Amino acid sequence: MITNPSAKYRPFPAVALENRQWPANTITRPPIWMSTDLRDGNQALIEPMSPEKKLRFFEMLVKIGVKEIEVGFPSASQTDFDFVRMLVEEDRIPEDVTIIVLTQAREELIRRTVESAAGAKRAIVHIYNSVAPVFRRVVFGMEQDEIVQIAVNGTRLIKELVAQHPQTQWGLEYSPESFSTTELDFSKRIVDAVSAVWQPTPANPMIVNLPSTVEASTPNVYADQIEWMCRHLERRDSLVISVHPHNDRGTAVAAAELAVLAGADRVEGCLFGNGERTGNVDLVTLALNLYTQGVHPGLDFSDIDSVRQLVEECNQLPVHPRHPYAGDLVFTAFSGSHQDAIKKGFAVQPKDGLWEVPYLPIDPADLGRSYDAVIRVNSQSGKGGMAYLLEQEYGLQLPRRLQIEFSRVVQQLADSSGREIAAGDIHALFAREYLEQDAPYRYCSHRMSENTAAGEAVQVEVSAIDGKVQRALRGSGNGPIDAFVNALGLDVRLMDYHEHAIGSGANARAACYVELRVGNGPTLFGAGIDSNIVTASFKAVLSAVNRQLAAAPAMAA
Amino acid sequence: MITNPSAKYRPFPAVALENRQWPANTITRPPIWMSTDLRDGNQALIEPMSPEKKLRFFEMLVKIGVKEIEVGFPSASQTDFDFVRMLVEEDRIPEDVTIIVLTQAREELIRRTVESAAGAKRAIVHIYNSVAPVFRRVVFGMEQDEIVQIAVNGTRLIKELVAQHPQTQWGLEYSPESFSTTELDFSKRIVDAVSAVWQPTPANPMIVNLPSTVEASTPNVYADQIEWMCRHLERRDSLVISVHPHNDRGTAVAAAELAVLAGADRVEGCLFGNGERTGNVDLVTLALNLYTQGVHPGLDFSDIDSVRQLVEECNQLPVHPRHPYAGDLVFTAFSGSHQDAIKKGFAVQPKDGLWEVPYLPIDPADLGRSYDAVIRVNSQSGKGGMAYLLEQEYGLQLPRRLQIEFSRVVQQLADSSGREIAAGDIHALFAREYLEQDAPYRYCSHRMSENTAAGEAVQVEVSAIDGKVQRALRGSGNGPIDAFVNALGLDVRLMDYHEHAIGSGANARAACYVELRVGNGPTLFGAGIDSNIVTASFKAVLSAVNRQLAAAPAMAA
Repeated sequence: MITNPSAKYRPFPAVALENRQWPANTITRPPIWMSTDLRDGNQALIEPMSPEKKLRFFEMLVKIGVKEIEVGFPSASQTDFDFVRMLVEEDRIPEDVTIIVLTQAREELIRRTVESAAGAKRAIVHIYNSVAPVFRRVVFGMEQDEIVQIAVNGTRLIKELVAQHPQTQWGLEYSPESFSTTELDFSKRIVDAVSAVWQPTPANPMIVNLPSTVEASTPNVYADQIEWMCRHLERRDSLVISVHPHNDRGTAVAAAELAVLAGADRVEGCLFGNGERTGNVDLVTLALNLYTQGVHPGLDFSDIDSVRQLVEECNQLPVHPRHPYAGDLVFTAFSGSHQDAIKKGFAVQPKDGLWEVPYLPIDPADLGRSYDAVIRVNSQSGKGGMAYLLEQEYGLQLPRRLQIEFSRVVQQLADSSGREIAAGDIHALFAREYLEQDAPYRYCSHRMSENTAAGEAVQVEVSAIDGKVQRALRGSGNGPIDAFVNALGLDVRLMDYHEHAIGSGANARAACYVELRVGNGPTLFGAGIDSNIVTASFKAVLSAVNRQLAAAPAMAA
Repeated sequence: MITNPSAKYRPFPAVALENRQWPANTITRPPIWMSTDLRDGNQALIEPMSPEKKLRFFEMLVKIGVKEIEVGFPSASQTDFDFVRMLVEEDRIPEDVTIIVLTQAREELIRRTVESAAGAKRAIVHIYNSVAPVFRRVVFGMEQDEIVQIAVNGTRLIKELVAQHPQTQWGLEYSPESFSTTELDFSKRIVDAVSAVWQPTPANPMIVNLPSTVEASTPNVYADQIEWMCRHLERRDSLVISVHPHNDRGTAVAAAELAVLAGADRVEGCLFGNGERTGNVDLVTLALNLYTQGVHPGLDFSDIDSVRQLVEECNQLPVHPRHPYAGDLVFTAFSGSHQDAIKKGFAVQPKDGLWEVPYLPIDPADLGRSYDAVIRVNSQSGKGGMAYLLEQEYGLQLPRRLQIEFSRVVQQLADSSGREIAAGDIHALFAREYLEQDAPYRYCSHRMSENTAAGEAVQVEVSAIDGKVQRALRGSGNGPIDAFVNALGLDVRLMDYHEHAIGSGANARAACYVELRVGNGPTLFGAGIDSNIVTASFKAVLSAVNRQLAAAPAMAA
């Protein structure tokens, strides 16, 4: 860090705004939501989405209630062009959903863009050009007049081209790119010039999108800029004022909220804040922030985990454990005093009354998350998580799904004992629940022969107690576990298998975890420990089978 | 999501603030920074820090220039108590650094807390009690008068106790917990009552910390609350007004910034936004937001990657790829027009002039990141990304240490090729580096016999190519891996072993990873895949041995 950043960076200039209104306003209805996940979000991914992923994402956006969806940059990418054509030609866009296609304000790109969306019921052509001083000077080497002319010419061309496709209800969105670092009067000038060409009406408004392409000021300044524009733009009653905040300063959510207070009608963003660099504003957080103020956002996040799962899969980016509303740790409370207050809050919370549980700003149930999840982490407070303790103290590295399964067992003890649970308690519980599950089947010994050179199947003979009788279970398969499962003669389906060393060297042992189903029973884990990796796996299989049979004794027949 | 959240949640009430000043203010100097990483941050971790990690974190905080550090909650935890005593007794607190110790306002806890910090040069006792209506009603069942009395009694006791340790320069911090959801006039009443007891002066001010314990409103409302308090509190010139914003609505950074505009002198938070639930405000983002406005924050993040690395290691929580300033993707540009503009911007950027490169709000060099780093991260996915891709696309779950080892290999390819690296490239590289390491040893087949009933050692005979000769390696041990390692006749020490299924059912295969040393060679991983768990483990052992011998050929002798 240089000694004196004042030589290198300058304070963001204040906005000359008389009689500022927005700080006293409140948000009483949701803005129009526009998802740019498939465009701005997608282009900022290490691995852009496949068409199949884009379609799944599109359908999820429709399902949660997004009515304006930017589906791509068709003139810049054949994949995007084909994707938009597929949506149109396969009639995949619902009646009440409008697609948006982005293009630079250049003739050949505009032609290609209009072509991509022609035939859709509703489509918005979104043109942009950069208007900020640094772009005019460094990137384009153009004067203001030339920059205005680019936007005006582009708009004229779009107007002409869309008239040739009357079956589509067309709209225009214009973005003066880098608006937030541009002189306000120049932004007004160029937007006014564009709307003079397009001639929007209150019934057929034009969208004016005012991006903070790079977030460069505290969010109150952005709000001032939006209020200034709302007051000064011509044809305001025929414009939809839109914002597109990036998150370079970590305040995109606030910038969007204050911009709505300042008069913005529409917000562009991505789910969980994907997008260039630090991302676009997070539409999930914005929507749920409204929700907890009693304003229905018009978006459905009642199953937020499944939305998160799809987004993580498509974006190949994680949602942070502390991400508002959706992070893994959001409904956890580790401190004893927090836990106590939450418990008391739940005890007096009326079923359909005003939500008033301390430390929980939203009812997890409204998001399809449960308070069980809160308690789970909750009861191992103070000395660290169950999984951590088992690993630190006993070298056991439980697979994630086993952690979840086992946490319910721990929870029962926590609830019934009401006391702090120590590492030793957790280990004893784990041993009882998994390692010592020996009825009806108990492993005694095994013989095995493998000869992979001869391409022979692996032969095992496991000596086990079955009920009270010692039996020899014989089977073959392509590996020891497969052979043993076959030897059992039950309808066992192995779902997952993990094995790792505890300790190292001569005294090392292996811990094995298997997840399996017997018949149509539940999917359950079993665990086994032994110095021999094969023995550990056999013990784990029997542990899981025994737990299955205990859970559903009828299946033993 | 319920149909009508207005029945369950209510809008946050506006603040009656005449002649609001803060929206027209600008930030011209940094607030006092207070790190609560070792307290609020630490208590919200799944795996709380060990004393050794706490010390490393403390020393890093000192190094970057934090002067007020909350070091624990000593009355709630023996670990915290011992940690504070260690800092004091081993004289680890620099002259200009003040430690803060948190306590509830209860007699025995206060006594223990003062005891913990006695002997430090400077220490602040930080007491809190919850003052919000829902706490008074639901959690405590107390009237306002009783709540005030708790704070007043606590303050009196502290004043009395600290007088017994005159070698320490003591300060008081009082937090009306849940301030942001409390009636302002009651917050004023209780703070005034505390300051009336403590009797601060401008030379020895008292810290009044006004937390948004749960973030419950848009950040402008929080700013209104802070401005209201700054105007109405008694003894304002003897108070340091502090804020402690949580991030439940994703606007903690904005809330802190607007609160500073509204008069706050001090900000409590954590590096990268750790803390309960959605976290505390992120001090890194706040500080660097000031930096890019030409205001030196007084904190040194000139090597942000090493700060990030230590924090990630201590917290065992990732910094998100899109986290402002520190995320992996922050200095990336995927779109061609962005890359072009950045290139042009760099070309004309004067060496010591005002920073004006499009799309880059800060010079990466100021953070110890380089534009090379931009390209590098751009061209591949980083360590986490690589592991994610291998798991998503190929079902391979690399142990963490193997991820680190393998990332160096990926990095070399990224640096030399300079192009985007796809999942397929990474997998091919993994195969070449680990799975296909077949010289000098190549696995052919094995025979094995186990009879655990007879207590026999496991016997293996592995047929392998050794150099160019096929050999039968025979050995015995307490399990297949042990037997095979013995059969090899090298001085092999197995350090770690992991094995897991890829897929499920009949087509499942096992992926095995072993970490081992040969002689005094480096500790390296090997990997093998096979439908048979034993075969996979043998292949993994040979992969590791081959890599060892390649790394240090002399040892083969």
